[in-house]
Amino acid sequence: MSELVSKEVHLVARPEGLPTVDDFKIVETRVELKPDDILVKNIYMSVDPAMRPALSNSQTKLNEVMAASAIGKVLESNEADIPVGSYVFHRFGFREYVALPKKDLEVITAENESITTHLHVLGITGFTAWGGLLITGELKENENVFVSAAAGAVGSIAGQIAKIKNCRVAGSCGSDEKVDHLLNDLGFDYAFNYKTASISKALHIGLPEGIDVYFENVGGKHLDAACGQMRPLGRIPVCGMISAYNNKGARSEGVTTLSNMIYNRVTMKGFVVYEFFERKAEFLSDMRGWLADGKIKYQETIKEGIESAPSALIGLFRGENTGKMLVQLAEE
Amino acid sequence: MSELVSKEVHLVARPEGLPTVDDFKIVETRVELKPDDILVKNIYMSVDPAMRPALSNSQTKLNEVMAASAIGKVLESNEADIPVGSYVFHRFGFREYVALPKKDLEVITAENESITTHLHVLGITGFTAWGGLLITGELKENENVFVSAAAGAVGSIAGQIAKIKNCRVAGSCGSDEKVDHLLNDLGFDYAFNYKTASISKALHIGLPEGIDVYFENVGGKHLDAACGQMRPLGRIPVCGMISAYNNKGARSEGVTTLSNMIYNRVTMKGFVVYEFFERKAEFLSDMRGWLADGKIKYQETIKEGIESAPSALIGLFRGENTGKMLVQLAEE
Repeated sequence: MSELVSKEVHLVARPEGLPTVDDFKIVETRVELKPDDILVKNIYMSVDPAMRPALSNSQTKLNEVMAASAIGKVLESNEADIPVGSYVFHRFGFREYVALPKKDLEVITAENESITTHLHVLGITGFTAWGGLLITGELKENENVFVSAAAGAVGSIAGQIAKIKNCRVAGSCGSDEKVDHLLNDLGFDYAFNYKTASISKALHIGLPEGIDVYFENVGGKHLDAACGQMRPLGRIPVCGMISAYNNKGARSEGVTTLSNMIYNRVTMKGFVVYEFFERKAEFLSDMRGWLADGKIKYQETIKEGIESAPSALIGLFRGENTGKMLVQLAEE
Repeated sequence: MSELVSKEVHLVARPEGLPTVDDFKIVETRVELKPDDILVKNIYMSVDPAMRPALSNSQTKLNEVMAASAIGKVLESNEADIPVGSYVFHRFGFREYVALPKKDLEVITAENESITTHLHVLGITGFTAWGGLLITGELKENENVFVSAAAGAVGSIAGQIAKIKNCRVAGSCGSDEKVDHLLNDLGFDYAFNYKTASISKALHIGLPEGIDVYFENVGGKHLDAACGQMRPLGRIPVCGMISAYNNKGARSEGVTTLSNMIYNRVTMKGFVVYEFFERKAEFLSDMRGWLADGKIKYQETIKEGIESAPSALIGLFRGENTGKMLVQLAEE
């Protein structure tokens, strides 16, 4: 049995509204290795907006360690195909060390990329953007596309994929710096700061012919404006509604324009990334090709240390990230 | 040239909010027959909620005759396959007589049914219910189904089709008499008066396992309650949003529960009946079989005379109809 001590994050109070750091507690525990377990030191973990609704229900238990996607390095292993020193992806973040059976680990076969990319552009958020836009959203070449939270981990990739497909792309974000980033780094055709612009007016300017695909990350006022401007046979893949997550019951601000769904035969569809898992090889092939060609760029916002994990999660709802928000738990 | 005089309905003012009879005018015109035209005396015409949004845009021109589905009797014809005395379906209601080329007429091949059924259960509204529920809604046996405006022309048929498919069916309507009709005449499992009940509480009682398919006719508060109770992979075929049609821009009351579409991967899809036209033979076969077996019942609310057409249309928004609202323009 190991004498290793690991710090981990517990939820100690169910937040109402925006969580505070006092809703979380850093706890030290001893790591126990069962026979055949593989010992992993976590290097990076992911925080994602979708974690917020899970804080309000039984998916997240009080006074137990929380869950997150993470990448770690193998410290002890008897498995020939998961050797000591290899990098692994797993779902047991929010802790420094973890002992897991082989079935819970996926060895990362990094090519020329940073291992962190497997927590975003080559991982869940990139796959979410790819599947949500191309499969759920049924994107076609030359369409008019609106992406909300477009400077975020999913939105930034969705917008760039739409550009690769020769679409006209408008994006919303929460600061003028992010507007610059969307226009000048990521090649969006139009971008606006929803905190200072009228969303509805901005969409009329950015996509004057209307919207064929709205990649929905925000909900509420964003959806109210976008739904009213959907074109015939438009699609709204619903990836997230970050504006609602801190409200009781995840209720958004009221959406009043849904009757346009009838006149223009619009489809709105909630999706979850695991729907696309059988097409993972296709996704990785596309995304690695686009990365190699410089067609997809990404940014990371990295906080340091397990103690910063709660504030990193909270920071997502304050727009503190550009691109993917990660927490680095140890040196690579 | 005919000396026949026909009364017809013009829109003379674009309504804001609920239309009034003063927004319409009955005008006498002379019917002019071109060579090869067929002269038709209209017997019945349809009024439908979807006419309301068209009063606010260029689909309906001011000071011209309005359009509606109608059934008429042929008075003059040189076409062997549209003989004098036959009944025809066309899109030129809101007038007593009409002269039309052959291409605009569809001869009704009535079997044992009343000709009025071709304006509802065997016509557009029945086809809308059938296609919206079975095609757009992808209804499966034994699901939990909610139908709003369930005593209306479309809702009453949608609910009964869901019962034929062995579903548990709840319906909303606007009076206690209609509740009785849904439960005792149409075989709904549960029905409530939305004017006196909490929609959300009623749905929890009527469909305690949640909703697989919500056949949406109303929008606003109905959708807000239903969307929050959708089950995994639930579908919301959006047929209409009558609660919104009299508002500026057809805006509904705010819907705040759309984040449930993500967690439960719900699809909401606006549709129009013409999407299903290639399957008309299948629809007619199903519906005639169900009518013959007594599995589908219908009611008609019939107003008399062209002068009552505006008030019949307005009456739809006051819940004055049970089943299909028609205007009888002449004796059969």
